[in-house]
Amino acid sequence: MSAYHPLTEQEAIAIAGSIEGFFPSGAALNCREIGDGNLNLVFHITDAASGKSLIMKQALPYAKVVGESWPLSLDRARIESESLILQNKLAPGLVPAVYKYDPELALTIMEDLSDHLIMRQGLINGIRYPKFAEDISTFMANTLFFTSDLGLNQQEKKLRVKEFINPDLCKITEDLIFDDPYTVSANNNIEPAIEDAAAALREDKALHLEVALLREKFLTNAQALLHGDLHTGSVFATPESTKVIDPEFAYYGPIGFDIGAVIANLLLNYAGQGHWIKDENELADFRGYLVETVRDTWTKFDQKFRALWNEHGVDRIANTTPGYQDLYMSRLLQDAIGYAGCKIVRRVVGLAHVADIATIPDSAARERAQRLALEIGTSLIHLNRRATSIEQAIDVILTAEAKH
Amino acid sequence: MSAYHPLTEQEAIAIAGSIEGFFPSGAALNCREIGDGNLNLVFHITDAASGKSLIMKQALPYAKVVGESWPLSLDRARIESESLILQNKLAPGLVPAVYKYDPELALTIMEDLSDHLIMRQGLINGIRYPKFAEDISTFMANTLFFTSDLGLNQQEKKLRVKEFINPDLCKITEDLIFDDPYTVSANNNIEPAIEDAAAALREDKALHLEVALLREKFLTNAQALLHGDLHTGSVFATPESTKVIDPEFAYYGPIGFDIGAVIANLLLNYAGQGHWIKDENELADFRGYLVETVRDTWTKFDQKFRALWNEHGVDRIANTTPGYQDLYMSRLLQDAIGYAGCKIVRRVVGLAHVADIATIPDSAARERAQRLALEIGTSLIHLNRRATSIEQAIDVILTAEAKH
Repeated sequence: MSAYHPLTEQEAIAIAGSIEGFFPSGAALNCREIGDGNLNLVFHITDAASGKSLIMKQALPYAKVVGESWPLSLDRARIESESLILQNKLAPGLVPAVYKYDPELALTIMEDLSDHLIMRQGLINGIRYPKFAEDISTFMANTLFFTSDLGLNQQEKKLRVKEFINPDLCKITEDLIFDDPYTVSANNNIEPAIEDAAAALREDKALHLEVALLREKFLTNAQALLHGDLHTGSVFATPESTKVIDPEFAYYGPIGFDIGAVIANLLLNYAGQGHWIKDENELADFRGYLVETVRDTWTKFDQKFRALWNEHGVDRIANTTPGYQDLYMSRLLQDAIGYAGCKIVRRVVGLAHVADIATIPDSAARERAQRLALEIGTSLIHLNRRATSIEQAIDVILTAEAKH
Repeated sequence: MSAYHPLTEQEAIAIAGSIEGFFPSGAALNCREIGDGNLNLVFHITDAASGKSLIMKQALPYAKVVGESWPLSLDRARIESESLILQNKLAPGLVPAVYKYDPELALTIMEDLSDHLIMRQGLINGIRYPKFAEDISTFMANTLFFTSDLGLNQQEKKLRVKEFINPDLCKITEDLIFDDPYTVSANNNIEPAIEDAAAALREDKALHLEVALLREKFLTNAQALLHGDLHTGSVFATPESTKVIDPEFAYYGPIGFDIGAVIANLLLNYAGQGHWIKDENELADFRGYLVETVRDTWTKFDQKFRALWNEHGVDRIANTTPGYQDLYMSRLLQDAIGYAGCKIVRRVVGLAHVADIATIPDSAARERAQRLALEIGTSLIHLNRRATSIEQAIDVILTAEAKH
């Protein structure tokens, strides 16, 4: 069974049964394919008797989005499993454990997290995650610091850059996030009600310059090994636990891109909550919680990244040059704000929308949410290079909310 | 003869004779090893009868500098030959032609340029190179543009980044250029007469911050495939011809690093000429020529790079975003000025000096040259992020010269 082919459920059961010491021998395994079928097969294998279970994720050699299909390298399965293994070492317990990786089958066998909920859905349901800012800031600080030139020998880091060259998946980001939303493209998905706002995006030349600069950094700035797709749909969570999944977009890029993804997706939920929570006080309260989470995510990341730097920095120059650390962190904040803006905008007018807003059934409420998200996103992009504090980003959010 | 070992002259002759169609059959080949023996063997193979000749360069598995020796990957021979072949395609005639590359022997067989003189020696001798600014700006514009995201498909570029990961040689630059000169290091080579100036380098905290930022870009900014060591000792020249050699430091880095190397080495000669040319008018005249060459190198590079961009740009965003090209070019200028400064400083207090200054026999004259070079170098570093025009760099040079 070594040559690549998409597995059947029966084959998946056979492979799962052959993992030594996981399931009791002779266990009657049950298998259900639970993937969305666009990029990967995902098999959920369970043994009712022992209560044990695992997940098998197999990459498909194509991507299917809105009916179209384009080829996609199976190498992303290697990138995903290698990233997960590395992340688990750097940020223990914050990603699923990998039990086995089969390169021929592009198959990763890993911990089952079905006692967790995808955080995006949890937020839509109004669930709060009091540990999230703490956990995600630890995840980012640890994985980003220890793969950067600050925390990893510079020559080893270059070999890592080589290992995680990821052209196919980067191409998706380059097109869908940094290009399509600002031009007329068949990939865009714009509701007629906000066509005027989408047209304004295409006309805002100052915005285009900021996006071009952020895109240039995405293309050239090999700062650290990113997760690369760190939205709330890539997080399995409970109020007590956070697990980051799906790092198939991992590559060496600008640190702010991961931080920005987290912030953006909290704010997309912020915009969408205008519909999901009907009571005004409750809405204000939940939005307050989301804003606080944005602030905490940055603040805790900033503290933890600096602490790692001060304790584990391997780079004499970076460690001893007065002013360098402050300048470095302020540039990360600027990048995070800029990328957060880009990631919000693309989720409103680009190809792939988010359930926080897209599933709002009332079209007027959906339009309000989209306009609020766009206002926040574009304002953050305009702010990015001028930002000196996370409070400026929060002002942008509150100002936009007050107008809508 | 396929397993790696350093070749003897007899083996070199046998290999040269076996290249089909180059030397007449049965030619009585002569061989002379002309390398400095520190990093490579260089065999000059000639046939007196036909007048034909070639160069065979073989990488040694170690670097020998001031008596010490450390291991160095033979992979640099692959990087050098692949770079030369690519550069010859992008900037035809401006590098030696490669006849053959043998990966097992880490051996590149290439065009003999012994009718040219190493440009550093030519400048010391007071020779002018009226075609140099034109040629080197073409070399840089073509090789840098067409390997960047501006002139090469972004996904192909990522594969190139991978191909040219070059940890060993980058390490040399990271240490000798960006680290040692600003601290107490056994690698430094400081003449007692300028110990006060070297101490000032170690105390200048604002300078350290600028150097740390330039070093960070060297570590992370994969803008284009650099030559990586583009000083006047890497240029074979006649007044009519320019040939760039020795790209074993090639890797994906910041474009300004190559431009800065050219400018730095013109200015090291500028500082040294205070000794070599005795007549004051002649000195002023030659220095004027060098300054003009600095100005022309940048100005012509700027023009040619923009022209390539406007005609051959493959990137929609970069091509159509108002203000982006101007901002991009102004950042290249800033980087070039900063790197020029770093490269001047290291040639005065770091491990490897340049003949333009180091071979000045009179110690007082040598000290004057070193102090002038340091003043220019540090001033350029301080200027870099504030620079908006090459004229500011030239003011720095003229101001420093007037003081010394």
